Parts: sequence; C-alpha cells; structure tokens
Amino acid sequence: MPLTDLGVDELVGYQPELTTPKDFDAFWERTLAEARSHGGEVKADRVTSQHLLHTVEVDDVRFPGWNGEPVAAWLLRPRGADGPLPVVVTYLGYCAGRGLPTEHLFWPAAGYAQLVVDSRGQGHDTPDRGMGDGTQWVEGFMTRGIDSPENYYYRRLITDCVRAVDAVAHLPGLDSDRIVVTGGSQGGGLSLAVAGLTGDRVAAVMPDVPFLCHFRHAAQIAGEGPYPEIAKYLRWHSRHRVGPTFDTLDHFDGVHFARRATAAALFSVGLMDPVCPPSTVYAAFNRYAGEDRTMTVWPFADHGGGCGSNPPAQLAWLHERGLAPGR
Amino acid sequence: MPLTDLGVDELVGYQPELTTPKDFDAFWERTLAEARSHGGEVKADRVTSQHLLHTVEVDDVRFPGWNGEPVAAWLLRPRGADGPLPVVVTYLGYCAGRGLPTEHLFWPAAGYAQLVVDSRGQGHDTPDRGMGDGTQWVEGFMTRGIDSPENYYYRRLITDCVRAVDAVAHLPGLDSDRIVVTGGSQGGGLSLAVAGLTGDRVAAVMPDVPFLCHFRHAAQIAGEGPYPEIAKYLRWHSRHRVGPTFDTLDHFDGVHFARRATAAALFSVGLMDPVCPPSTVYAAFNRYAGEDRTMTVWPFADHGGGCGSNPPAQLAWLHERGLAPGR
Amino acid sequence: MPLTDLGVDELVGYQPELTTPKDFDAFWERTLAEARSHGGEVKADRVTSQHLLHTVEVDDVRFPGWNGEPVAAWLLRPRGADGPLPVVVTYLGYCAGRGLPTEHLFWPAAGYAQLVVDSRGQGHDTPDRGMGDGTQWVEGFMTRGIDSPENYYYRRLITDCVRAVDAVAHLPGLDSDRIVVTGGSQGGGLSLAVAGLTGDRVAAVMPDVPFLCHFRHAAQIAGEGPYPEIAKYLRWHSRHRVGPTFDTLDHFDGVHFARRATAAALFSVGLMDPVCPPSTVYAAFNRYAGEDRTMTVWPFADHGGGCGSNPPAQLAWLHERGLAPGR
Amino acid sequence: MPLTDLGVDELVGYQPELTTPKDFDAFWERTLAEARSHGGEVKADRVTSQHLLHTVEVDDVRFPGWNGEPVAAWLLRPRGADGPLPVVVTYLGYCAGRGLPTEHLFWPAAGYAQLVVDSRGQGHDTPDRGMGDGTQWVEGFMTRGIDSPENYYYRRLITDCVRAVDAVAHLPGLDSDRIVVTGGSQGGGLSLAVAGLTGDRVAAVMPDVPFLCHFRHAAQIAGEGPYPEIAKYLRWHSRHRVGPTFDTLDHFDGVHFARRATAAALFSVGLMDPVCPPSTVYAAFNRYAGEDRTMTVWPFADHGGGCGSNPPAQLAWLHERGLAPGR
Amino acid sequence: MPLTDLGVDELVGYQPELTTPKDFDAFWERTLAEARSHGGEVKADRVTSQHLLHTVEVDDVRFPGWNGEPVAAWLLRPRGADGPLPVVVTYLGYCAGRGLPTEHLFWPAAGYAQLVVDSRGQGHDTPDRGMGDGTQWVEGFMTRGIDSPENYYYRRLITDCVRAVDAVAHLPGLDSDRIVVTGGSQGGGLSLAVAGLTGDRVAAVMPDVPFLCHFRHAAQIAGEGPYPEIAKYLRWHSRHRVGPTFDTLDHFDGVHFARRATAAALFSVGLMDPVCPPSTVYAAFNRYAGEDRTMTVWPFADHGGGCGSNPPAQLAWLHERGLAPGR
Amino acid sequence: MPLTDLGVDELVGYQPELTTPKDFDAFWERTLAEARSHGGEVKADRVTSQHLLHTVEVDDVRFPGWNGEPVAAWLLRPRGADGPLPVVVTYLGYCAGRGLPTEHLFWPAAGYAQLVVDSRGQGHDTPDRGMGDGTQWVEGFMTRGIDSPENYYYRRLITDCVRAVDAVAHLPGLDSDRIVVTGGSQGGGLSLAVAGLTGDRVAAVMPDVPFLCHFRHAAQIAGEGPYPEIAKYLRWHSRHRVGPTFDTLDHFDGVHFARRATAAALFSVGLMDPVCPPSTVYAAFNRYAGEDRTMTVWPFADHGGGCGSNPPAQLAWLHERGLAPGR
Repeated sequence: MPLTDLGVDELVGYQPELTTPKDFDAFWERTLAEARSHGGEVKADRVTSQHLLHTVEVDDVRFPGWNGEPVAAWLLRPRGADGPLPVVVTYLGYCAGRGLPTEHLFWPAAGYAQLVVDSRGQGHDTPDRGMGDGTQWVEGFMTRGIDSPENYYYRRLITDCVRAVDAVAHLPGLDSDRIVVTGGSQGGGLSLAVAGLTGDRVAAVMPDVPFLCHFRHAAQIAGEGPYPEIAKYLRWHSRHRVGPTFDTLDHFDGVHFARRATAAALFSVGLMDPVCPPSTVYAAFNRYAGEDRTMTVWPFADHGGGCGSNPPAQLAWLHERGLAPGR
Repeated sequence: MPLTDLGVDELVGYQPELTTPKDFDAFWERTLAEARSHGGEVKADRVTSQHLLHTVEVDDVRFPGWNGEPVAAWLLRPRGADGPLPVVVTYLGYCAGRGLPTEHLFWPAAGYAQLVVDSRGQGHDTPDRGMGDGTQWVEGFMTRGIDSPENYYYRRLITDCVRAVDAVAHLPGLDSDRIVVTGGSQGGGLSLAVAGLTGDRVAAVMPDVPFLCHFRHAAQIAGEGPYPEIAKYLRWHSRHRVGPTFDTLDHFDGVHFARRATAAALFSVGLMDPVCPPSTVYAAFNRYAGEDRTMTVWPFADHGGGCGSNPPAQLAWLHERGLAPGR
Repeated sequence: MPLTDLGVDELVGYQPELTTPKDFDAFWERTLAEARSHGGEVKADRVTSQHLLHTVEVDDVRFPGWNGEPVAAWLLRPRGADGPLPVVVTYLGYCAGRGLPTEHLFWPAAGYAQLVVDSRGQGHDTPDRGMGDGTQWVEGFMTRGIDSPENYYYRRLITDCVRAVDAVAHLPGLDSDRIVVTGGSQGGGLSLAVAGLTGDRVAAVMPDVPFLCHFRHAAQIAGEGPYPEIAKYLRWHSRHRVGPTFDTLDHFDGVHFARRATAAALFSVGLMDPVCPPSTVYAAFNRYAGEDRTMTVWPFADHGGGCGSNPPAQLAWLHERGLAPGR
Repeated sequence: MPLTDLGVDELVGYQPELTTPKDFDAFWERTLAEARSHGGEVKADRVTSQHLLHTVEVDDVRFPGWNGEPVAAWLLRPRGADGPLPVVVTYLGYCAGRGLPTEHLFWPAAGYAQLVVDSRGQGHDTPDRGMGDGTQWVEGFMTRGIDSPENYYYRRLITDCVRAVDAVAHLPGLDSDRIVVTGGSQGGGLSLAVAGLTGDRVAAVMPDVPFLCHFRHAAQIAGEGPYPEIAKYLRWHSRHRVGPTFDTLDHFDGVHFARRATAAALFSVGLMDPVCPPSTVYAAFNRYAGEDRTMTVWPFADHGGGCGSNPPAQLAWLHERGLAPGR
Repeated sequence: MPLTDLGVDELVGYQPELTTPKDFDAFWERTLAEARSHGGEVKADRVTSQHLLHTVEVDDVRFPGWNGEPVAAWLLRPRGADGPLPVVVTYLGYCAGRGLPTEHLFWPAAGYAQLVVDSRGQGHDTPDRGMGDGTQWVEGFMTRGIDSPENYYYRRLITDCVRAVDAVAHLPGLDSDRIVVTGGSQGGGLSLAVAGLTGDRVAAVMPDVPFLCHFRHAAQIAGEGPYPEIAKYLRWHSRHRVGPTFDTLDHFDGVHFARRATAAALFSVGLMDPVCPPSTVYAAFNRYAGEDRTMTVWPFADHGGGCGSNPPAQLAWLHERGLAPGR
Repeated sequence: MPLTDLGVDELVGYQPELTTPKDFDAFWERTLAEARSHGGEVKADRVTSQHLLHTVEVDDVRFPGWNGEPVAAWLLRPRGADGPLPVVVTYLGYCAGRGLPTEHLFWPAAGYAQLVVDSRGQGHDTPDRGMGDGTQWVEGFMTRGIDSPENYYYRRLITDCVRAVDAVAHLPGLDSDRIVVTGGSQGGGLSLAVAGLTGDRVAAVMPDVPFLCHFRHAAQIAGEGPYPEIAKYLRWHSRHRVGPTFDTLDHFDGVHFARRATAAALFSVGLMDPVCPPSTVYAAFNRYAGEDRTMTVWPFADHGGGCGSNPPAQLAWLHERGLAPGR
C-alpha cells in the first residue's frame, strides 16, 4: 500500500530520454491506410434483449477494424434523445471484453451516446486471427507477435480503436465534431494512442491510470499487472532479444503518441499504483503536446484510481469545455 | 481458486441443526417497536449537484432509523417518470457507505425507483453513535457490542434497514405494494433480515452471496472477509466467551430470518467464494420459508458472484413475477 | 526482511519540515481542562482472583479519563513493598487491552509499581462511547472520528493517558516524583504524547518503536500495521479529504509532542520495521526537546524491536538516572 | 506443502464417472486424417552451432503437423552411433518451447535418439496461426478456441504430437519399432494422448505428473498452474457456458485417451502436487487400457515429481522391457 | 484462519493405528543409561547481572546431559523463599534458546522454583556437537541425523530433558517430589517425552500445543512450522527413504511416550493451529496412559494456543492437585 | 519481478568501502596449511550403477578436505576419452548436495572432465561434523559457528573446495594446467573464493549469480534466500553481536577473495535477483584483480540468471581462451 514510485514533486518534472523510432509516423500512416483500404460496412442492430431497459437504447455494432475485420461494439444512448449527440468512445481494460451493455450506464445517463469498443481476442465477440508469421510470445497479450512491429498485437488493436473513431461518422444521430475518447488502464493507453493518431478529429481524451506508456522503464519497475509479462518473456528468451523487443514496443508507446496529440486531455494517476507506476504515466503526460492538459492526482489510490469519483469529475470537465449534450 | 466448501450435490441437502434463541421473535418485536416509537420525519431533497444527469433524478433522503436517528439514503428514479413506481431498496456491502448516486444507475435505467440505504458507521453520512454500555470488540464491525444482543452493531443496522422499508410509504411517487429488497454480501444478509422482519410487506427479496448467515459454522471455515473477525476476537478473548458470543450472533443470523420470510426470493451463491462459503448461504436458503425461492449457482465464482451478469438476471426474474414498472 | 527505510546515517540527520497546527497548544490545554473539570474518583480494589501470586499484589483500578468516564487499569506492585514506590505507567499496543495482570510481571519483579492503562475501545473493560457527531471512518481506530480533531479517537485516548498520570497521586504508596511513562508501538506514541503534555511531572519517558509519529509521511510509506488504514480511508473517500485529514492528524502527531517534552527519554527503533518505519521514529526523536535523550537502534529488528532484551536495558537506564526503587 | 488431494489408499480405487463424447473416436480419426492429407516433408539439418559438443549430434528438424504446418523439433543422438536407434519422443511442459539442444542431454547420453517436439505458440520456433473463427478465451492457452472442439488449441497441438511419431519413420537411423513417448506435466498429458491415438505404434509411454486429465474435476480443485485458467474463464463468462466448455474439454481429456492406449506405461504422481492434483492423474491411470502399467508415487513431491531421480528410473524401466539401445 | 483439521467431535475419538518400534523401550533404556553413566556435576551460580531484580533470584545452571555434556539452564525462584519449593521444569519452543531470565517470571511470581532448560544447538549457551557419523539432513533440526535413531537430534535433546529432571535432586531448596514438566510446542513435545521416560518421578506434565507427535500424519498435513522440513527432506531425497525416515521418527513420537506416561496431565490444543494440527495432538492425548488427563481446547486459537490465559489456568490446575507452594 | 537493486549504470561504478580483516591472508594461509597437513588419499571408484550411460563414465570420488575428512565428489568424463582432459570443477548451490551423476551431463558432453564437489552437511554423502566449540546459530548454514572465523561453517566448506583443486593432480587423465572452477549462487561464491586462494593454479573462474559477497550490505537488502538468515540471527540475538558477526563474515567475503584472484573470470548477474542482489555481485566483480574479466548481465533475470543459455555461453568463452578439450 505504500507509494510505488517517485513522489509527486519529482513526477511533475520527470522527463526521461525518449527513443522514438525513426519510422514511427510512417509506420502508423501505412498501417492505418492499409486498414482503411479494406473498406467495410458499419452495422448497428437494435438489441432487443435489452428491451427491459427504459432509459437507454442499445445497438450491437460491428465496424471494420484492422484488415477490415469486423470489430464488435455497444452503442448506448438515452432513449428517444434528439441528436446529434456528443459521443464518448470507450476502450477497455486488459483482458476484459465489452461485457454487457448494462455495465456501461453512466454516459447515457448523462445524455451522451457511448460507443464501447471490444478488445480483439480479450472478449467474447471479436477474435484476433491475424498474427500471420509472428512467432514468439508467452502467456498474455503483451508479447503476442512481439518479434516485430508488423506482427505485434497492439498494432491490430490500436488500429481497431482508430477505426472506431472513423465509424462514428457512419452511425446515425452522433455528432462527429464532439468525439471524446477515454478508458482506464489499457483503455487509457488506447485512448492516448487514438488521440495521437487522429489529431483534431477528437475533441477530448481522458486516459485514466493509462497503461502502454514508457515500456522500457515500466518493464523494470512494475510489480503487478501485465507489464511483468515483458520481463518474464525477456527472462526466458534471453538477453539477446532485449534490444529488438523494446524496438518493437517503442512503436506502441504512449509517450510517443502523447507528443503527437492535441485534443484537450484529462489524465489521472494513482500514486500507489503498482500496475501502472506513476512515473510511466507522467512520462506521457509531461510530453503531451496539447496545451489544455490536466492531471488528476489520486495520492493514495492504487490501480483503481479515483473509482466512483472519477466519472462525475470527467463529466464536469467536459461540460466546462462545451462538450455537453443539449437537453 | 478451488472450491471453498461442499460440492453442489451436498449443498442442496445441507440442513445443519439450528440454535434459534427462545426470545428471537420477542427481541425483534421489541427492538422494532422501540425504534418506531421515536417517530421522526422522512425528508427528501433534490440533489442539485447531480444536475448534469439527464435521465435520472436523485434525492438525498434522511429517514428515522434505530433510536430515531437520521439515516442517509439516495433515492434515484427515471427523470420525469409517472408514478407510482416499484422500488428496489438496496443495502450495501461491508465497509462501504452509499457512495455517490452515479454508482447506482442500473435500476433507474430499468424504470425502477431505487433507495440506496447507507450503513451506519461504514460510510460518510450516517454515524453509529449508539453503542451505549457495550464494552467489548476488536477492529471491524463484526464484534462491535458483541457482548449482548442489545448492544450488537447489527441490531442497530438491521433496524435501520427495516425502517427504510417503513420510509417508502412516506416518499412520493413510490408504490409500497411493489417493494423489492436486495444487496450483495452484507447487503444480502441485510435484505434477508428485512424479509424475515417485514413479512408480506416486501414483494421480493434478492440476496446475492449473502453474508450474516450460519455464524457458528462461518466463523470456523471462512478464510477471508469479515467472518474471521469473530475467530480473531475469540482467539484473543479466550474460550470462555465462545458460548455467549454465538448466543448474541444467533439473534442476527440469516438462517433464522429465512425461516420467517415469505416473499419471493432469488438467492445467489459462488461455489469458490472464500468470504461467504456456500454452505453458509445454503443453510439459509434451505430453510427459507417462502415457496417461491430460487438459487442462482455460479459454479466458478468467488465472492464476486455473477458480477455484471447478475442485475439483468434479477431484472428478468422480477418481470416474470409481475414486478415490472409500467412504461 | 530488508531495510524498510533510510540507512542509519541518513536517519540521524532526518529533519522533515513540520506542520504544527496553530491551535495545537490551545487545543490540548482546552481538552485536558475539560476532562479534568469532570472530576471523578480514583478507585483501587485488590484483585482476589490473583491470590495465587506470591510476590505481586494486584489492584483493579478505575480512574476518570476523557469526559470523566471511568478508565480501567491494573496496578501491580511487589507484595509487601514499603512505599512510596517509583511507578511505571504503561500504555498498550494497538488493539490490545490491558489483558491479564500476569502478563505484566517485569516491573513489579524489579521493585517498581506498575500502572497498566487500558486503551478505550480496544480491550475488555473500557468502552469508547463518546464519538458524538463524528461521522467518517473505515475499519480500525485510525480513522474513528477523523473528520475533526474534536471527534478523533486519539483525542479521547491521549486524554485518558494523561489522566492516568494525574491518577497516580491518588493511589497510595506511589511516588509522584518518580513517574516513568512507557509503552511499545501505540503505547510508545501515547507515552510520547503524555511526556509532551505533562512536562516535568514525568521523570522519564521510554517510547519503544513508537507509533503515531509523522503521519503525513507514515501514511505514504508504511506497508503493514495501522498506518495503512489512513491510506485506505483516503483511497475510498477521495482526494478532497487529504488536506483536512492530515490537519486532524497533526493535532496528534508525536513529532509535535516531542518538541514539548523535556523528561529524560529512551527511544528505540528497528531498522527493518515495516509498521513504524524508522524515519517516522527519528522524525520525533530528532525534534525531542529534552536534553537527556537516547536512541536504542536495533539494526535488524522488525516491529518487535529489542524483544526480551529491551526491559533489562530500560531497567538499567532508569537505575543510571536515580530512578531505582529502594530496597 | 501438505497433501493436496486424497490419500494414496483412496487414489488407487478412484474411479470417477466418465463423460466420453459420443464422437470422440470419430473426431480424432477425422482430425488426424485431415492433418495427414496435407502431406509435407520431414527435414533435418545438422546444427553447426552445436559443434562444441563432443558426444552428441544435433539436427534441427521440421516435420508437418496440424494443417501440414511445419513444426520444429530437435533430434539428438550419440555422436557416431550405429543405428537404428530406439527413440524417445519428448513433449514439453506448459509455456516452454523446445529451448536449446543442450537442455536435453540425458537420453543421448544413455544411447538413445531423442526427438524434442516444440509446442506451437509456446516457444520460439513454431507459431500457432490457425485458430480460424474461434472466438473466446482469456490469457493462456487453456481457453484458446475453447468455444468448440474444432477450434480448441489442444486439437492442433495433439495433432502435432501424433505427427511427430509419424515423422520418426522419415528420419534416418531411428528404429520405428522402438518409439517411446514421454514428457512431464503438459508433456505428460500429450504423451498419453499420443499413446491413445497411435495404438501399438509406440512401444512405451512415460507420462510424468501428467496435465490435461479429468478436466471437470481439475477445474474445481487445482489451486495453481494452468487448470485455474478454466475456472477464471468460467467466472468471467458466466455459468451458461459451463456445459459447452466441458463438452469441448472432454474431447481432449487424458482419461479418455487412457482407455484407448495399450503401450507399456510408466506414470508418475506427486501426492503434494497443487498443479496436477493426484486424483486427476489416477483418474487416467486407473482407466489405462494397457496391461503393463506402473505408477511411481512420490509421496512428498509437489509438481516437480521425482526431479533428478526420475530419468534414471525411467531408463531402468525401459531396459527391463527390452527397449535398450545396443552398444 | 479457518479450522486446520477435524472438528472437535471427531478429534475426541481419533485413534490412528500406531507403529511403535519393537526396540522402543530398549532404545531409551540404553540411551538414558549411557547418558547417566557419564556422571557429571550440577553447578549453579548466582547471576549477579540480575541484581536489579527485587523479587526473584536467578542461578545460571549447568547440568550433565547427553554424553555428559554440560547443558545450560536458568533456575529462578522467589527471593528469600523457604524451601523446599515445588519446581516447574520448562522446555522451550523450536529454535529458541533459554533467552534471558527476565523472560520467565510467571512461575517464580507464583511461588515456584522454575528450571528453564536450554535446547542444544538452538540457543546461545549449549552447543550440539555430537552428531557423529550421521550424514543426511536439510536446513533445520528436524532432519539432523535423521538417517538413524542413534544419530537423530532429538535423541540428544530428549536425553538432556530427562537429565534436567535428574538434576533437580542436586539443586538445593527444590522438592523432588513435586516436579512439574511443561512447555509449549517443541517444549510440549519434550515434556511429554520426559513424562513417558520418568514415570512417577514427575508429578504433573502440562504440554501446550505439543509438537513432535504423530509424525507420519503430521508430515502430510502440517502447512507451517517445522513439520514440513520432513516433507521437504523426503521431496529432495526421494521416496526410497520414506520408510527408514519414519522408522527413525517413531522412536521420538509423543504418541508412544504418551502410552508410557502416568503423571497428571494438562494438554492444550488450538483448533486452528496450522503448525501442530489438532489431530496430531489428540493422537497423543487419546493414548495417554495416566488417568488424570485433561485437554484444554482453544476453539479459535492458532499455534498461540491460550496465550496469556494459559499460565493462570495451569496454576489453578496445579493448586487443585495439591502442587502449590507453601507460603 | 521489478529491479531489486541499482540500475546497471550505477552498478558498473559501484565501489563500496571494504573492511578487509587484517589477518585475512594469514587466516587462510594457516587454515589451508592445516588442512593439507592431514594428508589423506584421493580415491576414485567406477560407478557401476551408471552402466546404462553410454557416453559418460562416472567415478565416485573421495578426497581429503578440511581436517583431512573425506569429501565426496562425482567425476564425469566422456567415455573412452583420451586424456589429459581439461577439467571443470563445479561447486553447488545452497542446500543441495552433489545429487546424481545424471544431473551433470553438460560438461562431459562438451568433452570436458567434470568434478562435482559435494557441500558438507548439505547433501547425502559428506557430513559436517567439525564445529568444535562453536555455539551459536539459528536454522540454516549461514550462522553455523558464526561466533568466530575459526568455527564458521564456510571455513570448512571453502577449505574442502580448495582441496578439490588439489585433488585434481591425483586423478588420472586430468590436465592440471587447465582447471576451471565454477558454480551458481553458493557455488559461484565458492568458485570465487577458490580463485582467490589458488592464484594461477586455476585457469578460469566462472561464478554465476554468486552468493557470499558483500555480506554487510547483503544482510540489509536481500529479501529472499539465505542472506536473511543473518538478519534473523541478529534480530534474535541482539545488537551487541552485530560487530563480531560481520567481523567473522569478512573472513569469507567474496569481495576480498576477488581482490586476490587473477584467473580469467566470467561472472553473471540477474538485475531482478532478490537472492543475490546485483550490487553485492558487482561489489566483488568491480574489485576483481584479474585483467580478463567479463560480466554477463541478464537484465530481466531473477536468481535463475541465464538458465539454459548460460552453459553454452560459458563453453564458447572457454574455447575463446584456449581451454577447449582436444578431439
């Protein structure tokens, strides 16, 4: 339960040296272009199994993601709302899929549309078929296809997440000018990646206790959660792979996405978080390119961050920035 | 992660001998009469800090509980709903208070009113002042005032919970004929107690992975959670207190409340639950007096029970019993 | 088992910035004056259940504590000793009450009278009834009434401890000029508080591995024991309470009592103590106002400190200072 | 460290009811026929990087496995041995690939050829690309493609393992009449599956502390290792999948392979094994169809089984059965 | 914290089959005769470093133990007591030596003499030099010399303990007709062994939560403490040693000593004891030959047993049996 | 799994102050001279129980060690090799004996002779009888005879290890000019000690994750493994022994042996090793006197170091230095 990392005084000035790959921008430009080249249709079917809900309408969505493969999502909105509605695109934590619609009731209760994007391979409805010739990993997704940026799992998942933003324009009643991306832990890392890859197409990004940041350091200091999968992999597969492994990971590091992101940003961090140690979160935050950026510090929180106090704080922050639904 | 108790074949026939106190009914009749004799007003103030919510209205409620002391609750309902609405009275888990209104959005989304009852001493808004001369305990609430049934903490908390049902009639727009009581863990034990003490005044009870059942056995086999507080107390305070301690606890045991309860009942249990081991749940369920009783078995669940799958299952079960809100 | 904190070289110069409340002295002056205004009688009854002891006489004492409420204590002394005897007033560890007289045989064997003071709420014989309107806490005593200095549990307990010193004058055969206060862990923190509040009325203070020191830091670094209750509370109850919570705790911090204490002092510390990390102990010791102060460092000890080696060391230290019983 | 399961007296008679799928034989006949229909070449390249070894020759082998995909293996043999040699086909533990040739020196030292078969997806050299439309799983391989027998990971891996036996005939200098299959933990489960699927083509099978046996029970009682992945999956993905999940697993259960196996068999079991609890091992052993079957009981072993004592015991057992290399 | 073994109803009738070595009596007769043949002097020197104690006199004793080697002990008695005094001979827990005299103040305070016997090799003052040719063990004393009864550590330690009783007659002021032997854990097992080897020379035996009982079962079920050293040894050193190892241990098993003991006996047991599981304690108690035998059951205790409540209970039990010091 | 110590940048310059005992060289000169003065014969018997091995010949060796006592070893070599062969002398990890010959097949497979030296007291075949009057310790070997350098366990074990090098000249077919000493953990510490005590008589030393280095620091920071035995000892036996204890340990510290060693050296270290923290390894490496010294850093390894990747790396390193067997 003690502090897991530096004190807050040191964190605010924490600026580790970065190792941005030379081909970072080209890699992502090419990756996204390829995915978009597959086209594919965005479908939304009203979920009748949720007819017992009175105040929320739910659609079961499939949109084209990496390689044009269909990615599942829930679209929730206040029943009978007049659009176009601002939309909160939510990415999910590690190893959890989109779950049930009834687990996502906050944003529709607040008058927003919400698109809950499945994580390929981690849930029920979206398989991750596409590893190709990628050959090396241990348990968990952190090392799936880690032999090269081409094969790495997060290449496919981040592409899905960007394509979710693309899909918003194809869903009726949503306001493409008011897209907010958010999520906690893995979802926080994904929202940061999307912000870095979509520029001013998203109005705001709210990464909570974000994962996928500052891999080189995280793999050395995180004691719980998925970062230690990297250490475990490198322990088994010998020191000769250390360099190439981090070269791969650099292509997916939130630190580099942060430098390319400009949307208004609300980060959060728990100073007793053993899963996403604070210095890894600040490494991204301190490089964030957008001028409107705020860090919510939960001084005694572990990886739960602000828990139930967090959504109302995010809601208020969005209202302050004119990103409120009409009534 | 293995099974924590008997297999399900043995559980369905598990009928341990009971040790009902002779004065059980008299004790509770007297306790409730005293509490009601204090009168007191039920107040509901619209929570303006929640004005950002579109589909839900929230009232901050105070109703008279044990000794007439004000007990806090949240009342949530679909914004603009025509009453009278069926109402779900929710009791809470151990050491959690009522929290924030935005943590309780499922039932209003489903068209119900919901009254979320604070647990005295465990949360922000309802102190537990009244221990009187009770003298012996260790950390935690399990042993607060355990020296006698008169002084025991759960005497006061259960009384609050019954008085919450009494308060429903004083809150506008609620349908007193369609009261459902529910909760998980401690909240499950409390809902069972309320069902046993209010007879046909509640239409249904839904105890999830209920705590506060079969204390004599639970104190011997539970490895995690609050039951071990009893073992710890008896370890420190010597064997001479074993008898009187369980005499006190017998006055609050869900096994005895179950025998007095007649509402339609939907229990749940996790067969890998180390906090509320399955045999303690079945000890109550197998004695439940009402004829319409169902056990939802989650064979691989720990104390999380059915997690997100549980509320939709409860909702469907209520609809099947005619306890649906109109539209 | 490794070091839990700074090395000893850094500890001896450790001088963190203090945050003494402006009303610290006034708060305690008022608190003690109020308690004393209740008067109340000191009673001592010979304990006949201990008639099997040959060399020790035991009295069961009740003296007036906070709010004039009776506080239990054991008074032990060598059977047939000629008084007046120097007296060791002992305060107890967290969650332990005064226990049985036979657990306190060292000081009477060494020729001293010993007054073992119960901790209200933590033991058998002294209830803690008086929280008034204090409303917020989680399990354990660390957060009981933490919403304000007025309501905080340690306000009542420290007052009891000071009043125990007051009671000495009312117990026959004791020498009020040779009062020693001591205890381990919580008892160490209490003895330090008493030393700070009684000035030269106590001749010596011997805090072992003292708790209740340097709360702001302890809540961030302690991994075991009761300090993490503070972190847990602030984790659940959000960052907005961080400031007020530590404002409350500042009124009870051994660091501030140390600056007001002048008695000869023998501290102890374990450099591998995860419950009361060494820097929290040194924070108090390094500010101790009395000139005759000694730190016993147990370099490989955990929270057990010097264990059985400690009482003889304390006894020798008292003899060196002329605080020996006559023979 | 205590016993993790029944005592040995109960284990020897342990005969749980089996739930063999009706299509078990047809499923495997079809699966193997399909794999064989792909043909493919067996290649063996002398590994020059091992030129520093004096007594062992190493070939890097690729043979066609499931879907005709190339599966990696090491072939080790005593340098300069005259063939044909008896061959020990070794399958590997969970999450380990074939590693380095120098980790497999026992059998060549004893005069045997040894074929060390990679586990697809778990190691360096053999990817597992083929999940097709399989959609549901959590971390680890236990639930990869668990939605149907067609998609399940172990369908592909077991097929690879059978095809390794097929490959022996295509490798020069090996004696196809003296094939022994063996392995520990996952490798033990795989060797048992191969014995059940190849009949008298293998001369002996030696499963050590075998995994992949009696899934229905193992998922309920195993406290460590990979079996709890099943419980975790069913915890998250709700009780409605319990039946279909075990229907899938039944197609891969060592209990059913054992009933079809006739080779001489040497099992081992550790009575304190928390990963592969003894009753799951005996469930397979007690159904083993071959008449020459022996169980080596290590009464105080955990999942390490007989450790270094095991290979010499296996070697002696093979010699007793005429399966010795000539000299 | 749950029950670690059978319930008390089963324990009272627990009668496992015994495996008494044929040479048990001869082995011990020979062992003790050899030790006594060495003669040796009992020396007692007044400890001047304890001059600060007022009510207790302390002697530093050396008496001849196994092989005639000097064994250290403390002799404490009430200062100035008229003898002859009844004497409590105390044996110690695993890995603790006799410590400091001030850790043993209860019995002298109650008017008894107390002889605190060091455990060779485990403390400061008595080396264990004599293993001879014994060759096999791992960490800890449980396996020191376990290759044969001749070489086993407890042969030497139990001999020391018997010789401590012999030494009483040579210490002035003690009453050899009123010798009580006692101890907790290892000390409990040793006191039981002494009772079995000294017949009516000891008036009473009080084994608390005794260790060294029912080794064959204990090694299989104990999860903490020293019994698992046996399992660890047999895990490393292979199954072939299981039989001989328990043949050795049978010579030192409290179950066999109990059948030979006739003194009045007061046992204690904790039903949640993971170190000395209750069935191992009852295995000895249920075979105890003396008619005056009592079991104190602490239903919620772990290995701490009755803690501070225990000595007063023992004192009262001794008084009831006429074993009180005069006054 | 995080880093357990300093980062690699700090480690390479880590130069803690040393506390070399003045009598260090004299102590060891005297110790070895005494041991050698006992003479004694080196015996080697062909092990017929290993006749099933084809490529390896095994001798069971006894050579004279400390006090001339016979120390067991295995001598393995390629069957039929023409000598003289270079020889790898291997020392073992803590609490493991020489085990079975079949656990040591790598070096003979690579064409070397290998002498596997038993650790007295830790295994099957070599007792540690000689503690003399040494009197104080707790469980484990770290504190056996720690009261003085004369009595300390590692004095005897290191002497055995040096005498193993002496024995090489007496074993036929070995090349005394090409002796390599190596081992992991304790074996690493021992090989370093031998290198420091034998000068140019050994051609190379390869200490893997070596133990027995920089005791004063290790006892403060190691969280697992045997170093904490020292902390535990000093916790129980009070601060007054701290100085003498480390004075003893200084005589056996790898840091001091490193300064006297000149052979070509290949160290290894795991940066996440909690048993032998990296700074303790670098403390020795950075003082190593020989010019040809290399550190293999496994950045994500725990105490397993390079596991299976290590022996081939060592083999290649030896070949580079001309220490290859002929063919």
